[in-house]
Amino acid sequence: MNAGTPLPCVALLSEVLDLGYLANAFRKEFPGIDLRMGNDVASLGPVEDVDVAVCWFPPHGLLAQLPKLALIQSLAAGIDHIAADADLPRDLPLCRIVDTTMAAGMKAYVSWAVVQQHRGMAAYVASSAAGRWEEQPVVSPRHHRVGIAGLGTLGMACAEALATIGYQVRGWSRSAKTDLPEGVQSFHGDDQLGDFLGGCDTLVCLLPLTAQTHGFLNASLFAQLPRGAHLINVGRGDHLVEADLLAALQSGQLSGATLDAFSVEPLPADHAFWREPRILITPHISTRTDPAVIAQQTLSNLAALRQGERPRNLVDMARGY
Amino acid sequence: MNAGTPLPCVALLSEVLDLGYLANAFRKEFPGIDLRMGNDVASLGPVEDVDVAVCWFPPHGLLAQLPKLALIQSLAAGIDHIAADADLPRDLPLCRIVDTTMAAGMKAYVSWAVVQQHRGMAAYVASSAAGRWEEQPVVSPRHHRVGIAGLGTLGMACAEALATIGYQVRGWSRSAKTDLPEGVQSFHGDDQLGDFLGGCDTLVCLLPLTAQTHGFLNASLFAQLPRGAHLINVGRGDHLVEADLLAALQSGQLSGATLDAFSVEPLPADHAFWREPRILITPHISTRTDPAVIAQQTLSNLAALRQGERPRNLVDMARGY
Repeated sequence: MNAGTPLPCVALLSEVLDLGYLANAFRKEFPGIDLRMGNDVASLGPVEDVDVAVCWFPPHGLLAQLPKLALIQSLAAGIDHIAADADLPRDLPLCRIVDTTMAAGMKAYVSWAVVQQHRGMAAYVASSAAGRWEEQPVVSPRHHRVGIAGLGTLGMACAEALATIGYQVRGWSRSAKTDLPEGVQSFHGDDQLGDFLGGCDTLVCLLPLTAQTHGFLNASLFAQLPRGAHLINVGRGDHLVEADLLAALQSGQLSGATLDAFSVEPLPADHAFWREPRILITPHISTRTDPAVIAQQTLSNLAALRQGERPRNLVDMARGY
Repeated sequence: MNAGTPLPCVALLSEVLDLGYLANAFRKEFPGIDLRMGNDVASLGPVEDVDVAVCWFPPHGLLAQLPKLALIQSLAAGIDHIAADADLPRDLPLCRIVDTTMAAGMKAYVSWAVVQQHRGMAAYVASSAAGRWEEQPVVSPRHHRVGIAGLGTLGMACAEALATIGYQVRGWSRSAKTDLPEGVQSFHGDDQLGDFLGGCDTLVCLLPLTAQTHGFLNASLFAQLPRGAHLINVGRGDHLVEADLLAALQSGQLSGATLDAFSVEPLPADHAFWREPRILITPHISTRTDPAVIAQQTLSNLAALRQGERPRNLVDMARGY
C-alpha cells in the first residue's frame, strides 16, 4: 500500500474457525485497519464499509449482503467452501492463496505420511515405547511407487519432494503438464487414469474439489489400484466416498488410509473412521497459510483490482479453481 | 566379470548379523560362486582360497588369517567396525558402499524423523487412536532450522531432501564443501562449529566414526544448541556420550532424541534409553544397502584391483573414511 492510500475495511468470515489469529496478523501488518468479524450482518457493523471478505467456510448468504464488496479472498488454496454458497455474488473476483510456506507444510506432511506407512514407522514407535528391539523389513523408496492425483502448485511441490527423497513418483492431472519435476512420470485425462492408478503403491489426492472431482476416491478407483495400496487424502473430504473406503479396507484392496480432510469437520465422535485402526486421522493440519501472507496478499490483490490489474491466483469460476 | 574369468572365493563375515540374505544375493548375481561363511578359520574351509571378505562387524583377528586376501569390502557406508580390529591387515585395500538406493533409504528416514518431531506427529497418531480431534500448533518448515553434521554422500543427500521439503538447512563438515545443494548454508571446521550449532533446532549426525568424531555428541556440544533442540543420530552409537544425552534431556537443554545407532546393538533390554520417553529408538534400520549392489560392487572392485585400477569408495585409512 502506498503511503496515503486509506486502508480498506476487511471482513473475516468463517463458520468453523476462530479467525482471531488472522485478525492479529492483519493488525500487525496494517496497524489501524478496520476489521469486521461475525456471522451475520448485524454483528459485522455497517456493511457498506466492507471492501473485501477473507473467507474460510463463510456463512452462506452473507457475502451477497455486502453492497460494496470488491474482492472475495480465500485464506487457503481451495475455494469450494465459498463456491458452495448458492447466493455467492459470482461476478466478483475470487482469489485463493498458494505460497511457498504453505507448500512447505504440505510437502512435510505428505513426505511424513508416505514414509510412515511405506517404512512401517508406527511399529517402530510402538516397539520403542514397549522396550523392544524389533526390525521391520527395509524396502528402499526406489522400490515404492507414489502417485499424486492433482498437479497444481501443491501437487507439483509434493511430487518434487518425494522424487528427491528417492521414491518412484508419477503424477496425474486433468490436462497435460509439461513442467514436471525431473524423474516424475506424467499422466493426464480420463484415458490415462487407469494406467496411472495401476502403478500407485501409495496414492496421494491433491485435486481441487469441483463438480468433476466430487467423489473421485470411490470403489471403482480403488479397484484400479494395486491390491494393498495406501490412500493419502490431503484434498477435501468430499473427494472421498466414505463407505467405499471402509469396504476397500475390509476387503484388503486398500491396506490403509491417511486422511486429513473430511466432509464434516471436526469429524464427529461417533464416525466409523475413528474405529478403523487402518485409518490414520489428522485434524486438517497438513498445512497452514502464513497469516502474514494472507494479510499482505489480500491488500495487494485489492490494490491490483483498483488499478485495473489482475490479482494473484484469481479463480476461473467455470473451471472451479 | 568377463566370460571365462573364474569367479572369486568370497567370505561373508559378521558377528552380529545373519548374512544368509547376502549369500542369496551373491548366488543370484553370480551362480556357482564359492561362498564361505563362519566366525573362525575352521568353519571357513580352506582359507587360502579366499580372495575377498565382505564384512559387517567381522570377528577380530580373522581377516589376518586369510593369506590370499586381496580386498576387504564393507557392506555399508561405515568401516569403523572393520578398523576396530587390532590385527587388521592395514596394507590391504578396504572399500565401503554408498549407492543411490542406500541414500534414498536414509533420506526417507531422516525426512520422516525431522517432520515427526517438528510437527508433533506422534500426538496426532495418539489422538487418532483415541478418537480425539486435537490440533497441534502448525509451524511451517520455513521456520525450522535443521543442521546436518557430516556432508558425505548421505549427509549431502539428506540436506537436499530437507531443503526441497522447505526446511532451513545448514551443513557442517570437517573441510570446506563447494557443492552443497541450493539453499543449504555451509559451515566447516572447528572454528565454525559453534555458529553452526547455534542455529540447529534439529541436529542430524551423519558423520563417519573416526578417532576425531568418537564422542562428538557430548554435553559441550549440546550446550551450544538452542535450548529445546532435537537430536537425530543416524551415524554410529559411539558418536554419542550416552550419559550426556540423558542429562541434557533431564535439564531441558534437549527436548528429545531419535536414535538409530547404538554402541551395543541390539540395545540391551535394561538400558536407560528404553525408559526415557523423550528418546525414540529404532533398531538400526534407517537404511540398508541393496544386497545385489553389494555383490556387484564386491566383484567389480576385485576386478578393478586385479587390473591395476582404483576400486570404488576406497577408504583412506589415515583419514578413516
